[in-house]
Amino acid sequence: VEEPAPDALAFVVSKSRLEFLCDGIFAIAMTILVLELKVPELADRHSVAELAQALAHHGSTFFSYLLSFLVLGVMWYRQNEHYRHLRHITRAMLALHLAQLAAAAFFPFCAALFGRYPTNNLSMALYTGCVAVYTLASTAGWLVAERAGSISTQLSPVDRKRYRKRHLRRCAVVTCLFLFCLARALGS
Amino acid sequence: VEEPAPDALAFVVSKSRLEFLCDGIFAIAMTILVLELKVPELADRHSVAELAQALAHHGSTFFSYLLSFLVLGVMWYRQNEHYRHLRHITRAMLALHLAQLAAAAFFPFCAALFGRYPTNNLSMALYTGCVAVYTLASTAGWLVAERAGSISTQLSPVDRKRYRKRHLRRCAVVTCLFLFCLARALGS
Amino acid sequence: VEEPAPDALAFVVSKSRLEFLCDGIFAIAMTILVLELKVPELADRHSVAELAQALAHHGSTFFSYLLSFLVLGVMWYRQNEHYRHLRHITRAMLALHLAQLAAAAFFPFCAALFGRYPTNNLSMALYTGCVAVYTLASTAGWLVAERAGSISTQLSPVDRKRYRKRHLRRCAVVTCLFLFCLARALGS
Amino acid sequence: VEEPAPDALAFVVSKSRLEFLCDGIFAIAMTILVLELKVPELADRHSVAELAQALAHHGSTFFSYLLSFLVLGVMWYRQNEHYRHLRHITRAMLALHLAQLAAAAFFPFCAALFGRYPTNNLSMALYTGCVAVYTLASTAGWLVAERAGSISTQLSPVDRKRYRKRHLRRCAVVTCLFLFCLARALGS
Repeated sequence: VEEPAPDALAFVVSKSRLEFLCDGIFAIAMTILVLELKVPELADRHSVAELAQALAHHGSTFFSYLLSFLVLGVMWYRQNEHYRHLRHITRAMLALHLAQLAAAAFFPFCAALFGRYPTNNLSMALYTGCVAVYTLASTAGWLVAERAGSISTQLSPVDRKRYRKRHLRRCAVVTCLFLFCLARALGS
Repeated sequence: VEEPAPDALAFVVSKSRLEFLCDGIFAIAMTILVLELKVPELADRHSVAELAQALAHHGSTFFSYLLSFLVLGVMWYRQNEHYRHLRHITRAMLALHLAQLAAAAFFPFCAALFGRYPTNNLSMALYTGCVAVYTLASTAGWLVAERAGSISTQLSPVDRKRYRKRHLRRCAVVTCLFLFCLARALGS
Repeated sequence: VEEPAPDALAFVVSKSRLEFLCDGIFAIAMTILVLELKVPELADRHSVAELAQALAHHGSTFFSYLLSFLVLGVMWYRQNEHYRHLRHITRAMLALHLAQLAAAAFFPFCAALFGRYPTNNLSMALYTGCVAVYTLASTAGWLVAERAGSISTQLSPVDRKRYRKRHLRRCAVVTCLFLFCLARALGS
Repeated sequence: VEEPAPDALAFVVSKSRLEFLCDGIFAIAMTILVLELKVPELADRHSVAELAQALAHHGSTFFSYLLSFLVLGVMWYRQNEHYRHLRHITRAMLALHLAQLAAAAFFPFCAALFGRYPTNNLSMALYTGCVAVYTLASTAGWLVAERAGSISTQLSPVDRKRYRKRHLRRCAVVTCLFLFCLARALGS
């Protein structure tokens, strides 16, 4: 009788709260991208030409903003797609989710670096590297979920296989892209 | 049998999660507007007159804060109004939603630029341009939703038409305002 | 038949979404208070004494952080208390809510100013002024909700009266405090 | 009859809204950690070696980012674990929750300080001190909840005891770590 029920102190994390945390981190990462865009200092406050020139000078930062917003939007959508098939979250799955979120929260730094030094091969390597870490953690999360039996039974075995393949394909593409950028950076 | 069910891997995005992402991005954009307001450096820490003068010097930044908070508040309300009539989100609708959110998240930069250079015609053109992009993406989202049959059937055909007109009218107003500001910027 | 139903295009804002926006803005305002705390520059990276001195020099900023976190926490709680008795949100109520949120989102600037210049009477006046604007908007929101008949019928007339009195009392206290600080600032 | 019902104006805070506030603050604290990472200034924009060196120079900031993200992730999980057993929130519990959240929101500053001065004993003491404040507030929250009878009755008395022990054990570990770091800082 003194023996506690096995599951009262077991690992439990609410799916909806992890979802909030995740949506919150994506919303913030997407919004703080803008903090990298700085208001330029102008000699003549009224000069349209000077402001246009100052902004054009930082054109790559604006391009990086748009690209990075899109990348985070796609990451967010992929997380949604993946997450809705999970029935519960195990400790290993939470750890991999946190790794994913750490990569997503780190992304604004990569975006800022890439926006500032678009022609530096290392900043491109870091940018793709961050996406690669995200994708690897996400794929590992799916494989671990499959092993832990936490994939919804509504997903047929065939669909589960297709999902796994899709994950692995994306992982391969992103990793290749990263390795290519890394090789270019190391070679230069 | 080996053929997967057609919808298991189909595009699905939860309405409530997109709502969270959206509310999160608006909440953050509205709050980081304040980061543009800087504590001034004072020679005499106790001087009320010096602090008042320093703050008055940045009066346009405070005005821009209030105006931009209001603009984002109205955008948020419009998104609400629009969103509650949607039944589901298609891929094109998600893409347009992300475009809307990218404009909303970009808005704090426009607000900062306008607060700093209120008399520069280009900053006014960028400010109204950002609102125009938001409004165009929102209107396009409504038209696409109508085509995709994702508008709630609770909305009568007459109301649907009125909504569409309202969207198009707003779009026209905002686009004209932007073109006027752009023309002024190009002409100066 | 061609006449649209009167309420299909009427003003509607979801209570739960306004709640999300509100909780989001409070969470962000509470967290970006920390951005005002800056890592000091040290001549000797290893010196405990130098770091302690540098941090002690900014003691008022730390005090302002704690005080402002508490003030925002109390504001958040008050908003909760008030909000759960509302049945629906009218246009005027939304406008007053946005005014409340604009004051809450502006608060980190007041906290930064007060932390930097605690002995400047104007920064104290702005700090209390921001709280006063928040409280006035909140009280006005309650009175407008009463007029619009949007207070829950579960609240008895007597309780409603007590709530109103509570609101008015707080308003009076905060306004007096602000006027006192303002008078001190103007007199110095 | 004129006497108001005792509970109409009583202290009530919605469990789900405190949850949102909490998830929001954690999401933001985790994401603004990245703002401490600064894009370095390069003499040669194309030089991979210079960028690599500049980033390596700030290696401890990257390490602090990862460690602090993990610490906040664990704090978030612990809050989840604790929170789901609560039935309602009393005034004292809300106050302790706000203390917890103030520590979590303060954490990015500690992370920035530790990342910048990893070898300074005081920054280590502040870092562990912030974790200790969080843990103490969390443990006090649990003990207060037990006294207030707000722990779910689904938790058996034995499990409740084990939870309390777990809380106290963590508290002891974290406090010892903090005292050790503090002693080192004071001794140096």
